Parts: sequence; structure tokens; C-alpha cells
Amino acid sequence: MSGLFITFEGPEGAGKSTNLGIFAQALAEGGCPPLITREPGGTPVAERIREVLLSQHEEAMDADAELLLMFAARAQHLNRLIRPALAEGRVVISDRFTDATYAYQGGGRGIDPQRIASLETWVQGDLRPDMVLVFDVPVELGMARARARSALDRFELEHQAFFERVRETYLERAAADPARYRVIDASGDLDQVRAAMQPAIDEVFDRVRG
Amino acid sequence: MSGLFITFEGPEGAGKSTNLGIFAQALAEGGCPPLITREPGGTPVAERIREVLLSQHEEAMDADAELLLMFAARAQHLNRLIRPALAEGRVVISDRFTDATYAYQGGGRGIDPQRIASLETWVQGDLRPDMVLVFDVPVELGMARARARSALDRFELEHQAFFERVRETYLERAAADPARYRVIDASGDLDQVRAAMQPAIDEVFDRVRG
Repeated sequence: MSGLFITFEGPEGAGKSTNLGIFAQALAEGGCPPLITREPGGTPVAERIREVLLSQHEEAMDADAELLLMFAARAQHLNRLIRPALAEGRVVISDRFTDATYAYQGGGRGIDPQRIASLETWVQGDLRPDMVLVFDVPVELGMARARARSALDRFELEHQAFFERVRETYLERAAADPARYRVIDASGDLDQVRAAMQPAIDEVFDRVRG
Repeated sequence: MSGLFITFEGPEGAGKSTNLGIFAQALAEGGCPPLITREPGGTPVAERIREVLLSQHEEAMDADAELLLMFAARAQHLNRLIRPALAEGRVVISDRFTDATYAYQGGGRGIDPQRIASLETWVQGDLRPDMVLVFDVPVELGMARARARSALDRFELEHQAFFERVRETYLERAAADPARYRVIDASGDLDQVRAAMQPAIDEVFDRVRG
């Protein structure tokens, strides 16, 4: 058994977390209960790092420092939780992973993707998600949904052009590797998105049972 | 003006911080007041990261995560405080820097020095301290001094063999690059250590005035 590593990606307001619950429930009902986790975070130490990342500070956070914090949380998450679960043959679903770093820190903040790739390899070796679901929604719709929901954190306070670059980066990465990526149109209602996820759910069962 | 970057290194109980005060005072009295800082930390965000590093947690911290946290704090410190001060031509003295990472995470915890070197270059580019003072003391004496002083943090709770490897790593690095490193025998009293530092103090004046 080698497990299956699935990640859910997309901006705030794409309904990612809600859809993750629906997706996970479908797997559980089919006899394949997944381990659900999130980034940044997923373990006690990684959640402490998440607090530092998402808080407002009295000084600006350096872009390199932010990137290293993301990968510090990721190393903890990967080595303490994800790798052991995959080694037991489990299906692991993470709400965000390294694609979010390329989208937010790379596309959004303009950090050179080569610098991100260098840390990705340093931390992950050759581990990459087996399947990435990208929940895609027009930026204005996503921002309106996120705003309606709760107070905005440090990342959500970024301006619209930032989120346009985030979206574009996700779509470019998906287009470049269609074997691993599935773009899900998340602008519709829950039933529509559920239907759009169904092929991916079927595929998980095929791969786990195959 | 290009400034001068000096770091103070050594284990707990080597008297590093006390001697840093004496060294800095001598520079200030000579008309060359230094900026004094420390690692991990030195800026508000970096101090938050320091808290995560030094706290006890309910799970073990992954060695890669620890290393990335160290370099996250370092990136913040370097880009927000040290580089700007050096650019203004100032003398900057940091209580610990990347040599401590080689000593503690490399020598102590056994992380491959090549992995440390890779992050060092990622964060620092070609910036290295102009002068590194290594305060050397036999491990038992250093531990006895540290124990007498205060409660021990997560790093200080390591066992003696760990600190022997830390010491050995510092001495090897100093031996490999005598142009930048000065090993100071810190086993004596304050006057003896002060005398041992005097050549380095003189050298700072020469370089700053030269």
C-alpha cells in the first residue's frame, strides 16, 4: 500500500473547505475514510507556525521569511503526519499544499518560482500530490463570499490584482500538468460543484481499489 | 562605507553575552558604537519565531522544520535589520548567527551540513560575517555555568555528547577559515577573556578607520 495524497487548492471564497467535506464524506461512505488535514498547520507545531504567518505584526514580514515559515510548517506536517499516513496506505486530503505557495507567494507576491522550487525539493524530495483539485472562481465572486463570511486575515486583505495573479498561477499550473490537476468550476451552487467533483471521486476509488 | 558584520558564537555558559557587552562597550568608547542584536530573533517577527523555536511543544519538532524556522528568523533579521545597518556603514554585532546553525543543528542534531549550506545560500546569498568570535569552553564547565544561572530551555536540555559535537563543530569551522574566525579561550575570568578579545577589538578599529 502506498496511499494517495490529494490536495484542495483555490482562493478564499471558492468553497474549498465545504467541498472538501463533501468529497471526504463521499470517500468515507464508499469505504475509504480519508485523513483530512490543512496547511499551513496540521500538527501542533505547524499550527503554532500558522499563527505567526497569519497574525498582523508590528513590522512587515520579509517575503523570504514568509516563504521559509510556510515550508517550516510544511516540513513538520509532511514528516510528522502526511508521510506516516501515506506509508500506512491511507488517503490523505490536505486543504492547501505547495501549489498555494506558488500561487500566493509566487504569483501573488512575485517571488521567483525557482526559489520556491528550490525549497520544495529541499523539503519534499520527490514527493508531490497524486491529485490536485483546483477550485476556480472569478476573483470578485470569491472575495464577496469571503467578505460575507468573516473578518479578513493578513492574506485576505490583499488587493484584487493580487488575487487575479493567484488565480492565474493556479490555472497555469493545472494546465501544465493535466495528469495530476483537476480544475473544478466553483462558481455554481453546491450541487453543481458536487457533480463537477464526481469524476475525481470515482478516480480515487479506482486508484485505491485498483 | 560598507559596515562590518561581527558575530559572537559559542555554547551556553561560555560567557558570550557578557563578553559581547564588554566588546561593544570598548568599541563605543573608541568612537565606534555598534548595533547589537541576537539570533534567533532581533526583530519583532523574528522574536515570535524564536518563541516557537525555544518552547516545549506537545509533539517533537521535526529537524527540517527547526532548520527552516531558524532560517526564517534569519531572513527577517538579515533583510530588515542587518543589511540596512551595514549599508549605512555601521558595525553590527550579532549574538549568534549561521555558525550556530552548523554547530547545533549540524553537529548537534546530525543534519547534513550540505543541507544547511543550501539554505544559507538561499537566504544570505554571499553575505557572511566579516569576523566570527568563537568563545570556547570545556563542555562541563559551560554546562555548570548555564545550570547555575537559570532554567534550561529546549536546546539547553540536550545531553553532554550533543554539546561536545557543538563545540567540535565550532572549532572545526574556525580552523578551516582562520581569516574570519577568532577562537577566544573563555574558561578564565572576565579580565583574562577581555585580554583575549583585545586583538579583535583593535582589528575592528583598524578596519573601520582604515
